[in-house]
Amino acid sequence: MLDYAPDLDRVFQALADPGRRAMVERLSRGPASVSELGKPMEMSLAAVLQHVRVLEACGLVHSSKVGRTRTCSINSAALRSAEDWLADRRAMVERNLDRLGVFLAATADDPDPASDAQERR
Amino acid sequence: MLDYAPDLDRVFQALADPGRRAMVERLSRGPASVSELGKPMEMSLAAVLQHVRVLEACGLVHSSKVGRTRTCSINSAALRSAEDWLADRRAMVERNLDRLGVFLAATADDPDPASDAQERR
Repeated sequence: MLDYAPDLDRVFQALADPGRRAMVERLSRGPASVSELGKPMEMSLAAVLQHVRVLEACGLVHSSKVGRTRTCSINSAALRSAEDWLADRRAMVERNLDRLGVFLAATADDPDPASDAQERR
Repeated sequence: MLDYAPDLDRVFQALADPGRRAMVERLSRGPASVSELGKPMEMSLAAVLQHVRVLEACGLVHSSKVGRTRTCSINSAALRSAEDWLADRRAMVERNLDRLGVFLAATADDPDPASDAQERR
Protein backbone atom coordinates (compact mmCIF):
# COMPACT_ATOMS: atom_id res chain seq x y z
CA MET A 1 0.00 0.00 0.00
CA LEU A 2 1.48 3.37 -0.93
CA ASP A 3 1.59 6.16 1.61
CA TYR A 4 0.16 9.08 -0.39
CA ALA A 5 0.95 11.96 1.95
CA PRO A 6 1.67 14.85 -0.42
CA ASP A 7 2.89 17.09 2.41
CA LEU A 8 5.59 14.60 3.45
CA ASP A 9 6.68 14.27 -0.21
CA ARG A 10 7.12 18.03 -0.38
CA VAL A 11 8.64 18.43 3.10
CA PHE A 12 11.33 15.79 2.41
CA GLN A 13 11.90 17.19 -1.08
CA ALA A 14 12.36 20.69 0.37
CA LEU A 15 14.83 19.39 2.98
CA ALA A 16 16.92 17.56 0.36
CA ASP A 17 18.58 20.86 -0.57
CA PRO A 18 21.45 22.09 1.66
CA GLY A 19 20.59 25.76 0.98
CA ARG A 20 17.00 25.25 2.11
CA ARG A 21 18.19 23.31 5.17
CA ALA A 22 20.45 26.26 6.01
CA MET A 23 17.40 28.56 5.79
CA VAL A 24 15.38 26.24 8.06
CA GLU A 25 18.35 26.20 10.44
CA ARG A 26 18.47 30.04 10.45
CA LEU A 27 14.68 30.35 10.91
CA SER A 28 14.71 27.87 13.78
CA ARG A 29 16.58 30.63 15.70
CA GLY A 30 13.86 33.21 14.93
CA PRO A 31 12.11 35.06 12.08
CA ALA A 32 14.22 36.65 9.34
CA SER A 33 13.71 38.72 6.21
CA VAL A 34 14.42 37.20 2.79
CA SER A 35 17.58 39.31 2.47
CA GLU A 36 18.79 38.20 5.93
CA LEU A 37 18.20 34.58 4.86
CA GLY A 38 20.28 35.12 1.73
CA LYS A 39 23.15 36.99 3.43
CA PRO A 40 25.33 33.95 4.39
CA MET A 41 24.75 32.33 0.98
CA GLU A 42 26.28 33.32 -2.32
CA MET A 43 22.90 33.43 -3.99
CA SER A 44 20.81 36.10 -5.74
CA LEU A 45 17.77 37.46 -3.91
CA ALA A 46 15.60 35.89 -6.64
CA ALA A 47 17.16 32.45 -5.91
CA VAL A 48 16.59 32.89 -2.16
CA LEU A 49 12.97 33.85 -2.82
CA GLN A 50 12.52 30.74 -4.97
CA HIS A 51 13.77 28.54 -2.11
CA VAL A 52 11.46 30.40 0.30
CA ARG A 53 8.54 29.60 -2.04
CA VAL A 54 9.43 25.88 -1.92
CA LEU A 55 9.63 25.99 1.89
CA GLU A 56 6.27 27.80 2.02
CA ALA A 57 4.58 25.39 -0.42
CA CYS A 58 5.29 22.41 1.86
CA GLY A 59 4.27 24.30 5.00
CA LEU A 60 7.74 24.46 6.62
CA VAL A 61 7.79 28.27 6.46
CA HIS A 62 5.27 31.11 6.64
CA SER A 63 6.02 34.56 5.30
CA SER A 64 4.32 37.93 5.35
CA LYS A 65 5.17 41.20 3.63
CA VAL A 66 5.11 44.59 5.37
CA GLY A 67 6.10 47.43 3.05
CA ARG A 68 8.98 46.09 0.96
CA THR A 69 10.17 43.55 3.53
CA ARG A 70 9.06 39.91 3.47
CA THR A 71 9.60 38.27 6.88
CA CYS A 72 9.80 34.49 7.14
CA SER A 73 9.18 32.29 10.16
CA ILE A 74 9.26 28.55 10.72
CA ASN A 75 6.28 26.24 11.24
CA SER A 76 7.42 23.65 13.75
CA ALA A 77 4.34 21.46 13.06
CA ALA A 78 5.69 20.62 9.58
CA LEU A 79 9.13 19.79 11.04
CA ARG A 80 7.34 17.59 13.55
CA SER A 81 5.33 15.67 10.91
CA ALA A 82 8.56 14.61 9.15
CA GLU A 83 10.30 13.89 12.46
CA ASP A 84 7.35 11.77 13.65
CA TRP A 85 7.34 9.71 10.44
CA LEU A 86 11.04 8.91 10.92
CA ALA A 87 10.72 8.28 14.66
CA ASP A 88 7.81 5.85 14.09
CA ARG A 89 9.82 3.84 11.54
CA ARG A 90 12.92 3.78 13.78
CA ALA A 91 10.85 2.71 16.80
CA MET A 92 9.45 -0.17 14.72
CA VAL A 93 12.99 -1.26 13.68
CA GLU A 94 14.14 -1.17 17.31
CA ARG A 95 11.06 -3.08 18.56
CA ASN A 96 11.79 -5.82 16.03
CA LEU A 97 15.46 -5.97 17.02
CA ASP A 98 14.40 -6.27 20.69
CA ARG A 99 12.03 -9.12 19.79
CA LEU A 100 14.83 -10.86 17.89
CA GLY A 101 17.08 -10.44 20.95
CA VAL A 102 14.43 -12.01 23.23
CA PHE A 103 13.95 -14.87 20.77
CA LEU A 104 17.71 -15.54 20.50
CA ALA A 105 18.11 -15.40 24.30
CA ALA A 106 15.23 -17.86 24.75
CA THR A 107 16.74 -20.18 22.11
CA ALA A 108 20.13 -20.08 23.88
CA ASP A 109 18.52 -20.98 27.26
CA ASP A 110 16.42 -23.78 25.78
CA PRO A 111 18.50 -25.74 23.22
CA ASP A 112 16.85 -27.98 20.63
CA PRO A 113 15.87 -31.15 22.56
CA ALA A 114 16.50 -33.27 19.41
CA SER A 115 20.16 -32.21 19.08
CA ASP A 116 20.48 -32.57 22.87
CA ALA A 117 19.28 -36.19 22.61
CA GLN A 118 21.74 -36.83 19.76
CA GLU A 119 24.62 -35.48 21.84
CA ARG A 120 23.73 -37.82 24.71
CA ARG A 121 24.00 -40.88 22.48
CA MET B 1 26.98 28.95 6.07
CA LEU B 2 25.69 26.03 4.01
CA ASP B 3 25.29 22.65 5.64
CA TYR B 4 27.08 20.42 3.10
CA ALA B 5 26.04 17.00 4.38
CA PRO B 6 25.66 14.93 1.21
CA ASP B 7 24.11 12.02 3.09
CA LEU B 8 21.25 14.13 4.43
CA ASP B 9 20.64 15.50 0.91
CA ARG B 10 20.30 11.95 -0.37
CA VAL B 11 18.36 10.61 2.62
CA PHE B 12 15.71 13.38 2.37
CA GLN B 13 15.64 13.04 -1.44
CA ALA B 14 15.06 9.28 -1.10
CA LEU B 15 12.26 9.83 1.42
CA ALA B 16 10.48 12.37 -0.82
CA ASP B 17 9.01 9.51 -2.85
CA PRO B 18 5.90 7.74 -1.46
CA GLY B 19 6.92 4.40 -3.03
CA ARG B 20 10.32 4.50 -1.35
CA ARG B 21 8.71 5.54 1.96
CA ALA B 22 6.40 2.49 1.64
CA MET B 23 9.50 0.31 1.17
CA VAL B 24 11.17 1.83 4.25
CA GLU B 25 7.90 1.26 6.13
CA ARG B 26 7.86 -2.41 5.04
CA LEU B 27 11.56 -2.92 5.88
CA SER B 28 11.12 -1.35 9.32
CA ARG B 29 9.05 -4.49 10.11
CA GLY B 30 11.90 -6.81 9.01
CA PRO B 31 14.05 -7.80 6.01
CA ALA B 32 12.33 -8.52 2.67
CA SER B 33 13.29 -9.63 -0.81
CA VAL B 34 13.01 -7.20 -3.73
CA SER B 35 9.96 -9.06 -5.04
CA GLU B 36 8.29 -8.95 -1.59
CA LEU B 37 8.94 -5.19 -1.52
CA GLY B 38 7.30 -4.78 -4.91
CA LYS B 39 4.26 -6.99 -4.18
CA PRO B 40 1.94 -4.29 -2.69
CA MET B 41 2.90 -1.81 -5.42
CA GLU B 42 1.84 -1.80 -9.04
CA MET B 43 5.42 -1.52 -10.21
CA SER B 44 7.77 -3.61 -12.36
CA LEU B 45 10.57 -5.49 -10.61
CA ALA B 46 13.05 -3.25 -12.47
CA ALA B 47 11.36 -0.14 -11.02
CA VAL B 48 11.41 -1.62 -7.51
CA LEU B 49 15.12 -2.43 -7.93
CA GLN B 50 15.78 1.14 -9.05
CA HIS B 51 14.13 2.47 -5.85
CA VAL B 52 16.14 -0.03 -3.78
CA ARG B 53 19.33 1.34 -5.41
CA VAL B 54 18.36 4.90 -4.36
CA LEU B 55 17.67 3.71 -0.80
CA GLU B 56 21.03 1.88 -0.75
CA ALA B 57 22.96 4.85 -2.17
CA CYS B 58 21.90 7.08 0.73
CA GLY B 59 22.53 4.37 3.33
CA LEU B 60 18.90 3.82 4.37
CA VAL B 61 18.92 0.21 3.13
CA HIS B 62 21.45 -2.61 2.85
CA SER B 63 20.94 -5.54 0.49
CA SER B 64 22.71 -8.82 -0.19
CA LYS B 65 22.15 -11.46 -2.87
CA VAL B 66 22.04 -15.19 -2.14
CA GLY B 67 21.39 -17.26 -5.26
CA ARG B 68 18.81 -15.32 -7.26
CA THR B 69 17.24 -13.56 -4.27
CA ARG B 70 18.30 -10.09 -3.16
CA THR B 71 17.28 -9.47 0.48
CA CYS B 72 16.97 -5.90 1.78
CA SER B 73 17.15 -4.66 5.34
CA ILE B 74 16.95 -1.23 6.90
CA ASN B 75 19.78 0.76 8.44
CA SER B 76 18.27 2.58 11.40
CA ALA B 77 21.37 4.82 11.78
CA ALA B 78 20.46 6.63 8.54
CA LEU B 79 16.85 7.08 9.72
CA ARG B 80 18.26 8.45 12.97
CA SER B 81 20.54 11.00 11.24
CA ALA B 82 17.57 12.57 9.46
CA GLU B 83 15.39 12.35 12.58
CA ASP B 84 18.12 14.00 14.70
CA TRP B 85 18.50 16.87 12.23
CA LEU B 86 14.75 17.56 12.42
CA ALA B 87 14.60 17.11 16.20
CA ASP B 88 17.50 19.55 16.73
CA ARG B 89 15.79 22.22 14.61
CA ARG B 90 12.45 21.72 16.35
CA ALA B 91 14.08 21.86 19.79
CA MET B 92 15.68 25.20 18.81
CA VAL B 93 12.30 26.59 17.67
CA GLU B 94 10.69 25.51 20.95
CA ARG B 95 13.54 26.93 23.07
CA ASN B 96 13.11 30.28 21.36
CA LEU B 97 9.34 30.23 21.88
CA ASP B 98 9.91 29.45 25.58
CA ARG B 99 12.34 32.40 25.84
CA LEU B 100 9.79 34.67 24.16
CA GLY B 101 7.18 33.45 26.66
CA VAL B 102 9.48 34.25 29.62
CA PHE B 103 10.24 37.68 28.13
CA LEU B 104 6.54 38.49 27.60
CA ALA B 105 5.63 37.31 31.11
CA ALA B 106 8.41 39.47 32.60
CA THR B 107 7.23 42.48 30.55
CA ALA B 108 3.65 41.99 31.78
CA ASP B 109 4.80 41.87 35.45
CA ASP B 110 7.03 44.90 35.09
CA PRO B 111 5.29 47.54 32.94
CA ASP B 112 7.25 50.38 31.35
CA PRO B 113 8.06 52.79 34.24
CA ALA B 114 7.82 55.78 31.84
CA SER B 115 4.20 55.03 30.86
CA ASP B 116 3.48 54.25 34.53
CA ALA B 117 4.74 57.73 35.49
CA GLN B 118 2.59 59.32 32.77
CA GLU B 119 -0.51 57.51 34.06
CA ARG B 120 0.08 58.86 37.57
CA ARG B 121 0.15 62.47 36.34
